[in-house]
Amino acid sequence: MKKLTIKLPDEAVRQQVQQAWREKLQGASLGKLEDLVANYAAMVGGVPRLLKPVMLLMCGDHGIAKYGVSAFPQEVTLQMVNGYMRETAGANVLARHAGMDVVVVDVGTNFDLSPYKKVRQLKVARGTNDFTQGPAMTEEQAKQALQVGMDLADEMIDKGCNLLATGEMGIANTTSTAAIAAAFLGLDPEETVGRGSGINDERMAIKRQVVRDGLAKNTPLERDGFDILMKVGGYDHAGLAGMILGGARRGVPTMLDGVNATAAALLAYGIAPACAKYMLCSHLSSDVSHKKMLATLGLEPIVDAGMRLGEGTGASLAIGLLRLALGTYQDLE
Amino acid sequence: MKKLTIKLPDEAVRQQVQQAWREKLQGASLGKLEDLVANYAAMVGGVPRLLKPVMLLMCGDHGIAKYGVSAFPQEVTLQMVNGYMRETAGANVLARHAGMDVVVVDVGTNFDLSPYKKVRQLKVARGTNDFTQGPAMTEEQAKQALQVGMDLADEMIDKGCNLLATGEMGIANTTSTAAIAAAFLGLDPEETVGRGSGINDERMAIKRQVVRDGLAKNTPLERDGFDILMKVGGYDHAGLAGMILGGARRGVPTMLDGVNATAAALLAYGIAPACAKYMLCSHLSSDVSHKKMLATLGLEPIVDAGMRLGEGTGASLAIGLLRLALGTYQDLE
Repeated sequence: MKKLTIKLPDEAVRQQVQQAWREKLQGASLGKLEDLVANYAAMVGGVPRLLKPVMLLMCGDHGIAKYGVSAFPQEVTLQMVNGYMRETAGANVLARHAGMDVVVVDVGTNFDLSPYKKVRQLKVARGTNDFTQGPAMTEEQAKQALQVGMDLADEMIDKGCNLLATGEMGIANTTSTAAIAAAFLGLDPEETVGRGSGINDERMAIKRQVVRDGLAKNTPLERDGFDILMKVGGYDHAGLAGMILGGARRGVPTMLDGVNATAAALLAYGIAPACAKYMLCSHLSSDVSHKKMLATLGLEPIVDAGMRLGEGTGASLAIGLLRLALGTYQDLE
Repeated sequence: MKKLTIKLPDEAVRQQVQQAWREKLQGASLGKLEDLVANYAAMVGGVPRLLKPVMLLMCGDHGIAKYGVSAFPQEVTLQMVNGYMRETAGANVLARHAGMDVVVVDVGTNFDLSPYKKVRQLKVARGTNDFTQGPAMTEEQAKQALQVGMDLADEMIDKGCNLLATGEMGIANTTSTAAIAAAFLGLDPEETVGRGSGINDERMAIKRQVVRDGLAKNTPLERDGFDILMKVGGYDHAGLAGMILGGARRGVPTMLDGVNATAAALLAYGIAPACAKYMLCSHLSSDVSHKKMLATLGLEPIVDAGMRLGEGTGASLAIGLLRLALGTYQDLE
């Protein structure tokens, strides 16, 4: 990875906004919504007239899916993509209500998605390798997948977007997420493997073993984002990590969704720690290690409504709140 | 008070909605947002195509304001009403973003608001009496003020509204709220008197004493909503309590805002306990006894963002979330 230059958010802007809130509210308080506007404004260098968010929904398949770590077979990837195209999936529906476009990206699915004209065809490989047998991807593949995210971030920002949002889809990606969290934070898989899309005890035992085997086989370096990505990550994670880095480089924040996006955020943070200053956290997932990951990144969730949906839906909800808070800030005298 | 007939929410509808969510989400979860839609649908007898909320912003002045229990003098009432008319107050701004009309009601301000054509002129008296010297209002006045709220609820529901929201404004109303909470829940004023709009220690001591004096002078009957209203309540509280009762009678729920609205909800609950089945709670106020009041009513907040704004802004935020959740329910296949 080339060295990235990421400037810090503008503290003077943050203070101006906080002062303006005090004057507008006169002793009352909008609580976290005030901070949200102040943080966002500090990142983008002022309170924008218009919020223009875009969700990049990164899709990738995972070699370890074959062990049955997910309640769903890999073929569900295609069904999900079909849902995105019909715009009836949770990701689309909530994004629409948040006034946000969704761009579906094939970073590394195991399917030929070229018939779907609206899908961005940027496939690095047909899914990752089985990481219990060796690295999930080569160094070259990891770089290429990060670049996919960075280039897309640039493209969206060039089009006027001032907020990126994470979306992801990949059967078995919470297994990869658990491996990333364990490797990055130096935790036992016992503490990072969750139920994902709602698996039973049997699959849970397999999932733990797969994570253990992957870590034992590859011995990723603690806190080394690139090394961990290459060894136990996914193309969905890589695309998101690249997007976060690409946004931060341009001073545009990323609204993180749940546990998979936060694992990608850890990888990005490992690669360029300053990028965490351009992260916004939507909600606390009910998945096990989410809290610890957020603490490492210094993030606090905006909403905590016990959601477990993935696909970027938490991000949409939080962006709806940000839109409301920005509108309130502008409209209050 | 005439006996009110309030039918229970439709449990079959609740179960249908919860089942539908399970089918739509397939193992994923929207957490509290699912419950919100299910609860709301059970109250109104199905998932409506369109959410049509209205906020009734009940205004009343308080005799005990003269002791300086608020950081603001009573004249601020007029300034606030001016802000509502210009539609630049927090109440208007957030309601607009939630797609909700705001109707300002003079139930009992100490000012002549007749020059404001958009204010509903339903004044029962020019503010309450000083409740440290006797009851805040007569039995007749209390009945009349409740009726104002009930009639307005009827009018709004006749116009097609399917959700009511509380708004309130009255200098010193958190003092009355503290007295209501102490009387209703049998608590010491120490546990119910908060900082309101942000008062200093000196005013805080006066506020506690005023509440103690009011309770000692009037000895309101624990859990007797009407008796407590008459003795230590406000016209703002009365209007809201009437609105909640009027809505419940028609099967239309009320979204509660902060601590003052919740005190009004306690009064309504004391008058007709079944009306609590038609309450939705927006947010947890940072004011002291809010949690206890909500527990008595069996309510849980939808958002908890550390807000302290009043004027119905928490209700607007929660209605924005309800709108999002309803839209999501309808759009998901």
